[in-house]
Amino acid sequence: MQPGPQNAITDVPGILVGQVERLDPPYLTGTTVVHVPGTAVAGVDVRGGAPGTRETDLLAPVNSNGGVNAIVLTGGSAFGLDTAGSVMRWLEERGEGVRVGQGDYDVVPIVPTAVIFDLARGGDFKARPEPSWGADAIAAATDGPVALGNHGAGAGARARSLKGGVGSASVRLDDGTTVGALVIVNAAGSAVDAGGNLYGARLGLGDEFTHLRTPVEPPPPAAPGRNLIPGPAATTGMTTGMTTGMNTVIAVVATDVPLDKAATQRMAMVAHDGLARAIDPIHTLVDGDSIFALSTRSTDEPRLSVTDPLALGQLETVYAAGARTLSRAIVHAMLNAESVETPGGTIPSYRDAYPSAFRTD
Amino acid sequence: MQPGPQNAITDVPGILVGQVERLDPPYLTGTTVVHVPGTAVAGVDVRGGAPGTRETDLLAPVNSNGGVNAIVLTGGSAFGLDTAGSVMRWLEERGEGVRVGQGDYDVVPIVPTAVIFDLARGGDFKARPEPSWGADAIAAATDGPVALGNHGAGAGARARSLKGGVGSASVRLDDGTTVGALVIVNAAGSAVDAGGNLYGARLGLGDEFTHLRTPVEPPPPAAPGRNLIPGPAATTGMTTGMTTGMNTVIAVVATDVPLDKAATQRMAMVAHDGLARAIDPIHTLVDGDSIFALSTRSTDEPRLSVTDPLALGQLETVYAAGARTLSRAIVHAMLNAESVETPGGTIPSYRDAYPSAFRTD
Repeated sequence: MQPGPQNAITDVPGILVGQVERLDPPYLTGTTVVHVPGTAVAGVDVRGGAPGTRETDLLAPVNSNGGVNAIVLTGGSAFGLDTAGSVMRWLEERGEGVRVGQGDYDVVPIVPTAVIFDLARGGDFKARPEPSWGADAIAAATDGPVALGNHGAGAGARARSLKGGVGSASVRLDDGTTVGALVIVNAAGSAVDAGGNLYGARLGLGDEFTHLRTPVEPPPPAAPGRNLIPGPAATTGMTTGMTTGMNTVIAVVATDVPLDKAATQRMAMVAHDGLARAIDPIHTLVDGDSIFALSTRSTDEPRLSVTDPLALGQLETVYAAGARTLSRAIVHAMLNAESVETPGGTIPSYRDAYPSAFRTD
Repeated sequence: MQPGPQNAITDVPGILVGQVERLDPPYLTGTTVVHVPGTAVAGVDVRGGAPGTRETDLLAPVNSNGGVNAIVLTGGSAFGLDTAGSVMRWLEERGEGVRVGQGDYDVVPIVPTAVIFDLARGGDFKARPEPSWGADAIAAATDGPVALGNHGAGAGARARSLKGGVGSASVRLDDGTTVGALVIVNAAGSAVDAGGNLYGARLGLGDEFTHLRTPVEPPPPAAPGRNLIPGPAATTGMTTGMTTGMNTVIAVVATDVPLDKAATQRMAMVAHDGLARAIDPIHTLVDGDSIFALSTRSTDEPRLSVTDPLALGQLETVYAAGARTLSRAIVHAMLNAESVETPGGTIPSYRDAYPSAFRTD
């Protein structure tokens, strides 16, 4: 298997991505929107201990919603949820949404949303995404390359002591279908093991990560006060200054394989294994880790069901690909992140912290 | 940190383990019981697509049950659930259970149970655990070493093409508390990566797995028809003969850190990350992966809550240890499993399939 041509979630037919961000002090935050013009069957699995979400309950398989118009991933913690409102109005103006009246524009757009905590990371608690940023992001959405690292909702993201960001990846399956992932890496845990390797790099497709090696030099000391969660080898309590909701990895996995609603939710469930393999620890009480799954409506084929034994093989292939693609997307987020100066100190990128991890030969 | 003296779940004060199994053809199955004489607060998280369980709903934090008497892990698929009945009667005779009447023996024992699929693995579909095996197992329970590999519910267990089994591990935290794990490894996915290494071995404590190395010789060809799930690199549909419920990893993680009911459930949730790091793929539609968590009642200290910011540090330490200890327990299951001859062919152990993985120097 190989990545799609852009190695991004936009390789999945029917998936567009748009992003806005502000990096000028005191801003360090942004908003990312996944737009599905043809709608997509959606599921969600919230596993973190401190989530911030909107329009997730209607995605349960027992509820009637049959498709969403967009997914918003945004900075601003719970304040950021308001960015979804402008996405809804942008969609309403174009008649995209659930028809609830006689008119072509009598629609209620369905825009599930999840947030990361990045408040005050650029220096000002109130320098967070404006409600209008959602509309700006969806207006910019394309099926082209996705800007990675310090963009969109990843602008202010952090993975333990390192700069996080937005990551994406895709895989083209042998039957011509595609699985893609988009992630905002903003974890209390670490994407880097004790040897300085990115956990997810061992899951690379082909030569995707062969330019990486185990760093030969230790990283420079991290800025003080950044390691908020005990690491794998740590045994004692939390450092001071830790509050609920300080982190959170949020993601979208998507495919053009036709899945029914429950099968789509299970894609979100299994994708959490991709977080576990790329970040340690994950799913902590101070992470709101939430994953959306989308199955686009580009085909009229019957939708696969988890109760159909004949569908198992294809479903498991898609689910395993979703988890794996998400792990790879996390690596791309870390590799594309750039160091930033903040009033709280420098947040170094993986590239700057571990320069010897990159082969020069 | 170091493992406890037995490197087993029985290092957690208040936890006893007993097992029975039959390996004589056509039997290849067994039952494992975790007995908590002082009761334990319990939680569960079911993440596999084909679970077989009993007495799990009362563990939800919204329900009133405040403690369990035992956990049963057993072979026999859903038929095996009857083994819990004899555990209940054994406990009833000793007055262990929820008091519901005037008499000391008017009790309802609480015995949550989960099963693995191993039907007909020894050659006869009906050669499965008898209901009485549960009582036999709890009667044999001790706080001593746990027999690993082809014992108890691990007798017939299989991890893709290799022999699975029962595994256990523990860690003594710096504050003197203990986290332990017990697992039945019976996965559709693989515990071994493409290079022949056990995924979880990189998580060893101290010199726990330093006797292992990357195998220098490829394994012998697996018996035909054993690889039921596409591997990480596979892209096409399932092989024939696959049916729902053919596999399943079930586990118990336990600690003497006092957790309230919701905090105990979250320990079970995070422990699934330990499965994801040691087996790939996991949580498939043909696995019933379920994890119980236990917080023993050996102390009168207030129980930690996920809503208490001051508890976060200790909780995250316990949760990360639970996931990590479960990954290590899976490695112990694979290292202690022994090859078996069955009517369906040989199921080789990791030791026999990868002899060059063990250092001889």
